[in-house]
Amino acid sequence: MNSFPSRLAVAVCRAHNPVVVGLDPRLDRLPAAIKPSSRDVESIAAAYRTFCYGVIDVVAPLVPAVKPQIAFFEQWGPKGMAALAEVVQYARQKSLLVILDGKRNDIGSTAQAYAHGYLSGAKSAWQADALTVNPYLGNDSLQPFVDVASDSGTGLFVLVKTSNSGGGVYQDLVANAQTLYEHVADNVECLAKETVDETGYGIVGAVVGATYPDELAEMRSVLQHAWILVPGYGSQGATAHDVAPAFDEHGLGAIVNSSRGIIFAHERPEYCDRYGDQRWQAAVEASTCAMIEELRHATAAGEL
Amino acid sequence: MNSFPSRLAVAVCRAHNPVVVGLDPRLDRLPAAIKPSSRDVESIAAAYRTFCYGVIDVVAPLVPAVKPQIAFFEQWGPKGMAALAEVVQYARQKSLLVILDGKRNDIGSTAQAYAHGYLSGAKSAWQADALTVNPYLGNDSLQPFVDVASDSGTGLFVLVKTSNSGGGVYQDLVANAQTLYEHVADNVECLAKETVDETGYGIVGAVVGATYPDELAEMRSVLQHAWILVPGYGSQGATAHDVAPAFDEHGLGAIVNSSRGIIFAHERPEYCDRYGDQRWQAAVEASTCAMIEELRHATAAGEL
Repeated sequence: MNSFPSRLAVAVCRAHNPVVVGLDPRLDRLPAAIKPSSRDVESIAAAYRTFCYGVIDVVAPLVPAVKPQIAFFEQWGPKGMAALAEVVQYARQKSLLVILDGKRNDIGSTAQAYAHGYLSGAKSAWQADALTVNPYLGNDSLQPFVDVASDSGTGLFVLVKTSNSGGGVYQDLVANAQTLYEHVADNVECLAKETVDETGYGIVGAVVGATYPDELAEMRSVLQHAWILVPGYGSQGATAHDVAPAFDEHGLGAIVNSSRGIIFAHERPEYCDRYGDQRWQAAVEASTCAMIEELRHATAAGEL
Repeated sequence: MNSFPSRLAVAVCRAHNPVVVGLDPRLDRLPAAIKPSSRDVESIAAAYRTFCYGVIDVVAPLVPAVKPQIAFFEQWGPKGMAALAEVVQYARQKSLLVILDGKRNDIGSTAQAYAHGYLSGAKSAWQADALTVNPYLGNDSLQPFVDVASDSGTGLFVLVKTSNSGGGVYQDLVANAQTLYEHVADNVECLAKETVDETGYGIVGAVVGATYPDELAEMRSVLQHAWILVPGYGSQGATAHDVAPAFDEHGLGAIVNSSRGIIFAHERPEYCDRYGDQRWQAAVEASTCAMIEELRHATAAGEL
């Protein structure tokens, strides 16, 4: 069984890029051909599945990983969750790594239940390769995820500095001469170092938003052994230049997510005339390739 | 449509106690008669449903609310989540308030998806009366929950000070002369005050663990307009004396959760001889009644 950092490095090197496509289906933004005619949950869940399969078909030959956002499936109840499970399986069949974005956590044995459900590999119900996890409940709440992931070749990404404008309200509070997010990062680095493999990275990574480039640069130097999952590119305003500090000199150590900018590219001014709603998959492909090129030019990902 | 604080106050006054029964099914602790013979997810999900229905049958005439822990259902994938939806509906049919313990959150429109999925009342897939929410992503991440709950007569409980031993690693950090949990509490109090109804309480409550009685007393004085959901009673070690500071002088303003101490009472030394595994529901009833009596004697809940 290969460790998660090895599997991630192999996937990134094989794709020659660090792009993660975020699967965030939203009912009102689906292409017309996929939008369900009725608003019952069965129809919506089926439309989300069809849409995500369509995105996966396009991006599987191009990128190393997808990141389904659980909230958009969970919003529609058990049928939505069943669609999520099918999307995960479909992505895995296409050899994509699957990072489930659930920002889960709880105390002790409850955290363990999440860890077993998501990160225990073939034995787990959801079969994620990695899960995003919230640190507010403390380091003891992270340990069950680390333990299960260690045993199963999976990984986790702990929220450190989120990409939203209000994220700093608590994350930027300064205690003992460090911000809260720096305290969290110190612990992530400890956990990463303890679980390091031959790639030089551990199974515990960090989420650091591209919308704060200075903090991203700081986090790269603190998180010597942790992969950084970088949200905020594209629709949230960050550029390839902004994410450049997240990479190590080999173009590894960071993966960059784009969700709406890729999956709803058919609505973007630069693609809607050329492809329109009908050829939405061509817009997904074009926007993915554009992002790959932008990162290759502006970051160390060009070394891949 | 009545507001959540009104509905909660009515439910507590009607039951004459503030007990919340936590529905945390765990495969290895189910009574023998309910334990599934096979370990496939269908059988486990069916056993969890049967077990929770059995708990609800006993506690519905006794207490105001139940708190299903989503993690234990989610652990088993879509089938587990389908069982959770059935458990929520069953509890609602028995006139129990349902507080879903998911500790969810995310940024902006993703938080909105969770809010719609859980808190938009009859329009929502999960139909919770309230949801537990994590504050790490900042105040802008809480607002979608407040907005949806305001429109729908539902509520939320924001994690402030959790009951686990390691919770203080970040929550107790001191910034600007206040701990992180005090900063979060200040915002919860603002949101509660903005949404106050004729009961004097708002739709935004706080989670404060009973395992830290001094901090619980402090939080009661800070959170003038917020209900406090108090975990940590019983199996986690806190007593009725420890939770007393959480109540206002009318015995309102706090609800106290017990999960394992009630639902697995058949394993407890004081009940296992008397009831044993066979009569596990009698043990649930006895432990619920004992907790109600303990709170009546040691806290202002005796005024109810």
